[in-house]
Amino acid sequence: MILETIITSLSPDGTAYLAPMGVHAVNGEMLIMPYRPSRTLDNILATGHAVMNHTDDVRLFAGCLTGRRDWPVTATERVPGWRLACALSHAELELVSMEEHELRPKLHCRVVHEANHAPFRGFNRAQFAVLEAAILASRVGMLPWEKIAAELAYLRIGLEKTAGERENEAWSWLMEKFDAFRQGQVQETEIP
Amino acid sequence: MILETIITSLSPDGTAYLAPMGVHAVNGEMLIMPYRPSRTLDNILATGHAVMNHTDDVRLFAGCLTGRRDWPVTATERVPGWRLACALSHAELELVSMEEHELRPKLHCRVVHEANHAPFRGFNRAQFAVLEAAILASRVGMLPWEKIAAELAYLRIGLEKTAGERENEAWSWLMEKFDAFRQGQVQETEIP
Repeated sequence: MILETIITSLSPDGTAYLAPMGVHAVNGEMLIMPYRPSRTLDNILATGHAVMNHTDDVRLFAGCLTGRRDWPVTATERVPGWRLACALSHAELELVSMEEHELRPKLHCRVVHEANHAPFRGFNRAQFAVLEAAILASRVGMLPWEKIAAELAYLRIGLEKTAGERENEAWSWLMEKFDAFRQGQVQETEIP
Repeated sequence: MILETIITSLSPDGTAYLAPMGVHAVNGEMLIMPYRPSRTLDNILATGHAVMNHTDDVRLFAGCLTGRRDWPVTATERVPGWRLACALSHAELELVSMEEHELRPKLHCRVVHEANHAPFRGFNRAQFAVLEAAILASRVGMLPWEKIAAELAYLRIGLEKTAGERENEAWSWLMEKFDAFRQGQVQETEIP
């Protein structure tokens, strides 16, 4: 099972580095597969720790993909580092072992501490729409634009029916990113 | 903002009646719009209370749509009734006023008690895929089959990549329902 979460890792300068990541939960173990090279990979290897932040504020996912990485954090409890202040719950992880891979090494981690901060308030279709759009935004140069446009049109239906303010704000950030990409593309083809 | 939740209402025989429902959260008020006629509407009007159950076990949503309504419940704390045992959190509601409507009356409710039982463990794309498929299943006679099939094909991608056991089980229940509907349709057109 893959959980879409925000990983906070501790940078050498003592600050938190935030990255949205799909973490595989397998028999109680958490498997993180950061791309190589990445700051998250460097930080986890240097410190031996990472934090999974479970938030329903989808602005975190859209924000990290659109240059908005400055979110309030709070000190972790058992391992050195930070967790998101807005996390409904978080899990503090210890790196147990690493499987090497040239593109995506596998970091096997175990949960050393978990805390429940605020209640889950139910599913919201707009949150899902933002999450899927964020995943599309992270692949914008790799997928055909027609496929992205068709999926965004579908996702927009659930978004418009069910969003609150946070979801609309997150969606608008992602649409700006898609627009900028499209304008870049148009310029590339129009200006010889 | 619309929250996808399981409403438990208290039936005249003292048992819990479960129904998946999109509840509008507006300025702290919860707006429930059950269809007329429905047992949920009757129960809330008779008792003046309802319970919102926030669960990440999507089998509840798929189950209620496929005849599987027998899930463990626990007594509520402030209002008469029941909440789901598997709820990560729940809110106990009091009916404040009703706006009449021949199809969907609006039940304005206020939260009188909330409780946080277990941590939210992050977004899972398969959970949302099941939720969207459940919404499609609830409209199966009203939407063109081609539209349903296209959306299911899209949702299946996220499901297959990220599901755990509960999500796969819930998805299979919904697919059985779609299959049964399709077989019924085929018979209708094939047998004169």
